[in-house]
Amino acid sequence: MRNLKLTVAYDGTCYHGFQDQGVDSLPTIQRTLEKAWERLVDERVRLNGAGRTDAGVHAEGQVVNLRTGVDSIPDARIPHAFNSLLPRDIAVVGCERVADSFHARYDCHSKVYAYTILNRAFPSPLERLYTHFVHDDLDAQAMEAAAKFLVGRHDFKAFAGSNSKVRSTVRTLYSCAVEQVGIRVIITVEADGFLYNMVRAIAGTLLSVGKGEHAPDWVGCVLESRKRTNAGPTLPAKGLVLRRVRYEPPILLDTRSGPY
Amino acid sequence: MRNLKLTVAYDGTCYHGFQDQGVDSLPTIQRTLEKAWERLVDERVRLNGAGRTDAGVHAEGQVVNLRTGVDSIPDARIPHAFNSLLPRDIAVVGCERVADSFHARYDCHSKVYAYTILNRAFPSPLERLYTHFVHDDLDAQAMEAAAKFLVGRHDFKAFAGSNSKVRSTVRTLYSCAVEQVGIRVIITVEADGFLYNMVRAIAGTLLSVGKGEHAPDWVGCVLESRKRTNAGPTLPAKGLVLRRVRYEPPILLDTRSGPY
Repeated sequence: MRNLKLTVAYDGTCYHGFQDQGVDSLPTIQRTLEKAWERLVDERVRLNGAGRTDAGVHAEGQVVNLRTGVDSIPDARIPHAFNSLLPRDIAVVGCERVADSFHARYDCHSKVYAYTILNRAFPSPLERLYTHFVHDDLDAQAMEAAAKFLVGRHDFKAFAGSNSKVRSTVRTLYSCAVEQVGIRVIITVEADGFLYNMVRAIAGTLLSVGKGEHAPDWVGCVLESRKRTNAGPTLPAKGLVLRRVRYEPPILLDTRSGPY
Repeated sequence: MRNLKLTVAYDGTCYHGFQDQGVDSLPTIQRTLEKAWERLVDERVRLNGAGRTDAGVHAEGQVVNLRTGVDSIPDARIPHAFNSLLPRDIAVVGCERVADSFHARYDCHSKVYAYTILNRAFPSPLERLYTHFVHDDLDAQAMEAAAKFLVGRHDFKAFAGSNSKVRSTVRTLYSCAVEQVGIRVIITVEADGFLYNMVRAIAGTLLSVGKGEHAPDWVGCVLESRKRTNAGPTLPAKGLVLRRVRYEPPILLDTRSGPY
């Protein structure tokens, strides 16, 4: 028995998210990977993914683990074997053998997501699938200042999608950075876990600051209010990419934590 | 009568190139723009494009000119008007009124194309539509050294597609630069004109140097030989983007010109 840690990249445009919904007409990343493995070695497996990316969300560094009794393919050849059968919008980009106990979701310390806003006068056909287009002038420095209010251990109820059914809405945000790179404004967030639609709600809230609709410290008030209706809109899925999943304990640099 | 200079960006993935082929089942950028204008103001026009990008080639800064007798839409609103009717993979990103005599193709001094190679161990689903994937280690410095042999006024017959029917294969390459940006190797070429498949053949030839199959000065021999079979392969269209079209005379910095 091998337990393999696979790093997976995908263009989420045509998928109903990572996680299998048990409905064949709704293609998911998980099911597509499982089917590829079954075709490859005639073995049915259930993959564990670190993050349940939503419909339309992309990934550069999703992590899944695969427990297999098949040993016909050496570890180093697994990505190539997968990629020979996967559609072009999914690729296995890394593979390493891990301890039998390793679980991609339970063992994960943090995940890093990036949300990209394309900020210029007109939309860009070449970036339309991977960015959210905003033509208003954005103040990235104000967004960066606003982002700092979110870093730390807080109750993120104000940024949780309405159909979220989790017990606790407390999460630790290790970092939240806003960077202007040419015509792009990139929001990068690292946390020990994310509520449903949390990054997209944070991005929508910071965008509202960037447009000058609110001052940066308004984000602190939104956070404290714990009311979703106070925050900004949930931005479209296509601007969001799961960049990487970390399995080593992160260091919390900012001390602006709440009482949790 | 207004003569409008439009800057157009597009994702060429689903199109049979820029130029209308007179066949409705082969969608082209030109025809899509002309149809949008007709729906907008009920006027049939024929657009002139600066470059005939091939099937699958993209553009960030294609230039077309549009002569119209309709004055119901102010110049500044033209891009928005177009974009409201265009599919998401085409956008008008600029509009200015120009002299009646202006012709997007005949008046153009140079065009800048960029070819992007994605260079890492595994393919990238998020960049698959806009880059050519190469997993071999590439020596970008050797490619840069090789590129210098092409700059100047030369007979580029060795880099012309076999079904090219032009009278002269002499062109002036104002610059040819190779830049490594993270996992991307970007070849940027500016010339007064390009032969059929010329940038993709240059990219394939430089790639061959990057892989270590040839030394940089081999490219000089290929150029002198004027034989297409001596050069590298024509790389896929999807890695190529028409970056911009210039209407001011360019400056030839490099003096390594042939006897033309």
